[in-house]
Amino acid sequence: MPASSPDTPATRPVIRFAKGRSRRFRAGHPWIFSNEIEMTPEAKSLPPGSLVTIQDAGDEKLAVATFNPHSLIAARALSRDWTETVDAAFLARRLRAALGLRDTLFPSPHYRLIHSEADGLPGLVLDRYGDVLVAQVNSAGMEALTPLLLDALTEVLAPTAIVLKNDSPVRGLEGLALEHRVALGAIDGPVELIENGCRFLADLDGGQKTGWFYDQRDNRAFAAGLSKGRRMLDVYTYAGGFAVQAAMAGATEIVAIDRSEHSLELAARSAELNGARVTWVRAEAFAEMARLHSAGERFGMVVVDPPAFVKSKKDLQAASKGYRKMVRLAAPLVEPGGFLLAASCSHHMPLDLFTDEIAHGLSQAGRTGRILRRSGAGADHPLHPMVPESAYLKAVTLQLD
Amino acid sequence: MPASSPDTPATRPVIRFAKGRSRRFRAGHPWIFSNEIEMTPEAKSLPPGSLVTIQDAGDEKLAVATFNPHSLIAARALSRDWTETVDAAFLARRLRAALGLRDTLFPSPHYRLIHSEADGLPGLVLDRYGDVLVAQVNSAGMEALTPLLLDALTEVLAPTAIVLKNDSPVRGLEGLALEHRVALGAIDGPVELIENGCRFLADLDGGQKTGWFYDQRDNRAFAAGLSKGRRMLDVYTYAGGFAVQAAMAGATEIVAIDRSEHSLELAARSAELNGARVTWVRAEAFAEMARLHSAGERFGMVVVDPPAFVKSKKDLQAASKGYRKMVRLAAPLVEPGGFLLAASCSHHMPLDLFTDEIAHGLSQAGRTGRILRRSGAGADHPLHPMVPESAYLKAVTLQLD
Repeated sequence: MPASSPDTPATRPVIRFAKGRSRRFRAGHPWIFSNEIEMTPEAKSLPPGSLVTIQDAGDEKLAVATFNPHSLIAARALSRDWTETVDAAFLARRLRAALGLRDTLFPSPHYRLIHSEADGLPGLVLDRYGDVLVAQVNSAGMEALTPLLLDALTEVLAPTAIVLKNDSPVRGLEGLALEHRVALGAIDGPVELIENGCRFLADLDGGQKTGWFYDQRDNRAFAAGLSKGRRMLDVYTYAGGFAVQAAMAGATEIVAIDRSEHSLELAARSAELNGARVTWVRAEAFAEMARLHSAGERFGMVVVDPPAFVKSKKDLQAASKGYRKMVRLAAPLVEPGGFLLAASCSHHMPLDLFTDEIAHGLSQAGRTGRILRRSGAGADHPLHPMVPESAYLKAVTLQLD
Repeated sequence: MPASSPDTPATRPVIRFAKGRSRRFRAGHPWIFSNEIEMTPEAKSLPPGSLVTIQDAGDEKLAVATFNPHSLIAARALSRDWTETVDAAFLARRLRAALGLRDTLFPSPHYRLIHSEADGLPGLVLDRYGDVLVAQVNSAGMEALTPLLLDALTEVLAPTAIVLKNDSPVRGLEGLALEHRVALGAIDGPVELIENGCRFLADLDGGQKTGWFYDQRDNRAFAAGLSKGRRMLDVYTYAGGFAVQAAMAGATEIVAIDRSEHSLELAARSAELNGARVTWVRAEAFAEMARLHSAGERFGMVVVDPPAFVKSKKDLQAASKGYRKMVRLAAPLVEPGGFLLAASCSHHMPLDLFTDEIAHGLSQAGRTGRILRRSGAGADHPLHPMVPESAYLKAVTLQLD
């Protein structure tokens, strides 16, 4: 039975826990690992992404889940009520709940609408740009549910376009190929979004990830507030988020660096939309920070928000040193009394280690200061309470002496 | 030489590192432990709180510090420039730097002005209520500097009153007695402060700590925003901070609990100042939460912000279960789709363990949900980059299904 055929709870395949292995799942964890279940020949032969009923070693039925016999995360719970039918209406209920939360949080329809497990839809990341939606499908289960998901999205949000940006390497772990396609409507150039009262353009074709990093919304607002009346440097500006918001908050002069001409062009168009003046510099970040230092340049606010340096757990020791170097290069650019915001979006980089690398980077630069704030992603990137380690974004804001 | 006699860098007593023990301090850590120095008879006989020059095992002079031969934290750095004279002018420079930061951060003079090491004044916590200052002196070094500090405060801030609220148990580790006295002017009833646009009264005589917990400012603003249009419950309301701000943000009905009649009276006066309607309930928190549950009461926002449950490291395992129970009792009071903010101000409670206890408390209550935000104290409670473990406040905000 392909998982995309209609779900019938009563006749769903059953996956059974090995004896004594269900405790964590029963306590509320959303995942079941492959070594926790009875991997019978029947289980093994289920198509990746099948809907299954999870049963304890006894006969008690615990949940409906998606199942992938080839993945370390063998099953991902969709509902603790196994009698629920997983259909477009089910998905629409999840979408409406997520929408209710975002409507409480934000004044305009520009946000991450679904953040995977935390929004009850494991394997799905969904960003909203008004009437345009960008989905990342990261599990075989969600891949199989994609046709129903498109129906549900249409029902709940009546979007003009839906982009499937299925290019995350984690798809490989689920046996899924990479793809990037427009599943509904058409994308005709960059889309507009509003964040903290500023207008931006996001490129849903060529951009990184889903085109805009909504996760930094709160951190951009905080950094913008501190930039008022100061000269501001935005390293790794990408789509111009920190730079333009600092300009609109009253920074006196803004320099923004990126190595991508394409990103800078789009960022410049966003600045124009807001009437913001920013000097855009195409350069490699580390080299340009060293050059600015040699040139005696100083700023009242420096933001360094790089792509992930740590790509895997085994990289951690070496790659975490990249953050130390980044801070060592950025700190000399901060005027006495000025501010530094350093961010890491590496999943494998713990906050404590990141803080430690920042402290050592400052020390190597011969600077002292104080941490004002350590923060994560905005509230439209919620965490499942049992999977807090999925909090990937760390932003540390300091004042330097 | 009593440490409060004039400081002369050239003739200051010297404390020398044991060989090979200075690495951490040289990298920027503000403390030197007693097992890292040469504890000579001369060192041992220095009066607690003496100013000393820190010297490496070689002859290199590294810093000026306060010294206490009887404390595990033997020395606390005041400046890496040992030639600086530590006098009222020195302290005034530190105060002005801290003031500059707070003036950037806040629209009115109500904040923590000095947060110990992070503001370059180890052993000192100083809260500002406009023209009234409340200091907590927590090291022998700062105790010895108190007369100079009072001069510096008068010079920089011209306060009408300064209260020394020296009643923290950590003073015992430094061999200091507890005291609570008005060092300048007079305190004539509660003082007023403004936080997030709301007016409050703080009791600097009978209150806990320094009378008002400025550390929750950002969390109160976030909780207030989520409370709009909802029924709100503030458990452990103390001076009414969360409750009154929720009322002013548009909560439909507010119930606030504290076991102290005195706190409730003051909180009620604060509510009146803002024209806020709050129902004040004098009760023990756990019992009252259980009673509210039995009575079928539900709220759209529940805040549980208790005093520290974990008093010492050896208490951790047992006391951390208190947070689990707190969440188990609070979660049933949250309506579906409503919010829960749980806080811990226990120094010894790590964020990961606190998150874990929350997850298990939810699970025991049979509730699911998502973490929207994990945050610490406001930016007027900065951290020394080398002592991030001093971040004691943790607030976790969730939405429950």
